[in-house]
Amino acid sequence: MPEPVLLKLGGSVLTRKGGSGEIRYDTLESVSREIGLRGAIPLLIVHGAGSCGHPEAHRYGLMQGLTGKNREGVMVTHRAVSRLNAALVDALTEQGISAVGIPPLASCYAESGRIRSMEWRNLREMMNRFLVPVLHGDVVMDGERGVTIVSGDQLVVYLAGVLGISRVGLATDVPGVLECGQVVPEITPESADRLCFNSSSSTDVTGGMEGKVQELVRLAREGVRSEIFHVSRLGAFLDGEPHGGTVVRAG
Amino acid sequence: MPEPVLLKLGGSVLTRKGGSGEIRYDTLESVSREIGLRGAIPLLIVHGAGSCGHPEAHRYGLMQGLTGKNREGVMVTHRAVSRLNAALVDALTEQGISAVGIPPLASCYAESGRIRSMEWRNLREMMNRFLVPVLHGDVVMDGERGVTIVSGDQLVVYLAGVLGISRVGLATDVPGVLECGQVVPEITPESADRLCFNSSSSTDVTGGMEGKVQELVRLAREGVRSEIFHVSRLGAFLDGEPHGGTVVRAG
Repeated sequence: MPEPVLLKLGGSVLTRKGGSGEIRYDTLESVSREIGLRGAIPLLIVHGAGSCGHPEAHRYGLMQGLTGKNREGVMVTHRAVSRLNAALVDALTEQGISAVGIPPLASCYAESGRIRSMEWRNLREMMNRFLVPVLHGDVVMDGERGVTIVSGDQLVVYLAGVLGISRVGLATDVPGVLECGQVVPEITPESADRLCFNSSSSTDVTGGMEGKVQELVRLAREGVRSEIFHVSRLGAFLDGEPHGGTVVRAG
Repeated sequence: MPEPVLLKLGGSVLTRKGGSGEIRYDTLESVSREIGLRGAIPLLIVHGAGSCGHPEAHRYGLMQGLTGKNREGVMVTHRAVSRLNAALVDALTEQGISAVGIPPLASCYAESGRIRSMEWRNLREMMNRFLVPVLHGDVVMDGERGVTIVSGDQLVVYLAGVLGISRVGLATDVPGVLECGQVVPEITPESADRLCFNSSSSTDVTGGMEGKVQELVRLAREGVRSEIFHVSRLGAFLDGEPHGGTVVRAG
């Protein structure tokens, strides 16, 4: 059996920035085709919300939890990202992949913004049977706050851990983690502290990328290496070939 | 805080029998109105699939598990019952209820046809916050068979147990458990064995009802009483008044 792969597709890869939840159907199709070409591999996909969910979560203040006034935002935000999930599942299905949409609102429980428990035995069984679960960053119930937002990147770290997946790839809209315009080829827990996320080169490193690296450093500490690359290099990653991106690993 | 309620809506209540997945939108509306009239109560809803899922599950032989040939049936069956779930969630939302669809394919794992584990802490949190989770009988991954079908009734028993819910009601298209055309007012684990499910009066007691009583007797053995009544008596059940149906309880 080929080695299991956990693939994260960035929200900014799948949607256009700037508000109205515009899905990049051409990218959904090209990504799905790359995956479909590789035939049956045990694969789990997590995607970000991009402009299908982030604007809604922000508007209703869901990061701060459930208040008397933002209850409606739970459903509105979940529906926005579910729409993107359904579009990706459809695109994958078109390419002959047995994709199954899995909403974390249904399967995940958090406390103080971090995943506390989650059903994952069904995901392992799907991967063993070459069904491809497709999860996403989502609104999740939180025992402290009522609700929280669990990012796709947090899901990647949690699921790679519980499922014991050691091939983790993150397809983004940049060629890797950038510092002063250059790809950083390798990051370790030690070197991560020296990255100039907040320096003058911060235009190259979005807040999103800083959060991503923090999550992946957690993973590296658990001994799981991960790779960040431009979505156009997805085929190279899947084939285990050089992709010109960043590897995050234990020192 | 009012006592938490677990309400099961039968598949035959919400859909028309005979094939093509016809949803009874008028019933969805009247049921939702009855619930909405009671204001905020900690409520969890489970519904059956009826003709939105059963014909598909049967056609692909999903009860017997995953074979080389019926993989497509997982998605087709799940999609059919998801459509009914979305319609019910919409109808509840129309009546001002904060309903959230929860697909067991995402949150549940079975072995040999019985639920082995399931994320439920998120459901408890929803009920505490007056969000109403709406689950349904579904295709579920099974560690022995690949997939199985978990009925709404099995979900009722599992969830009442883990969530510690002691008010359980099942709205059906008959006035209660019938024997020789008469409602049986009370069933205990002992008396259940004497019910004439397979006698000449079996036209009154469908196979569906026999399975239901088996599940509810499991629940009674754990000390949880449950009530079976005609859907037109839903208001009476919610108000804790006589509904003319059957009570299943420990002896």
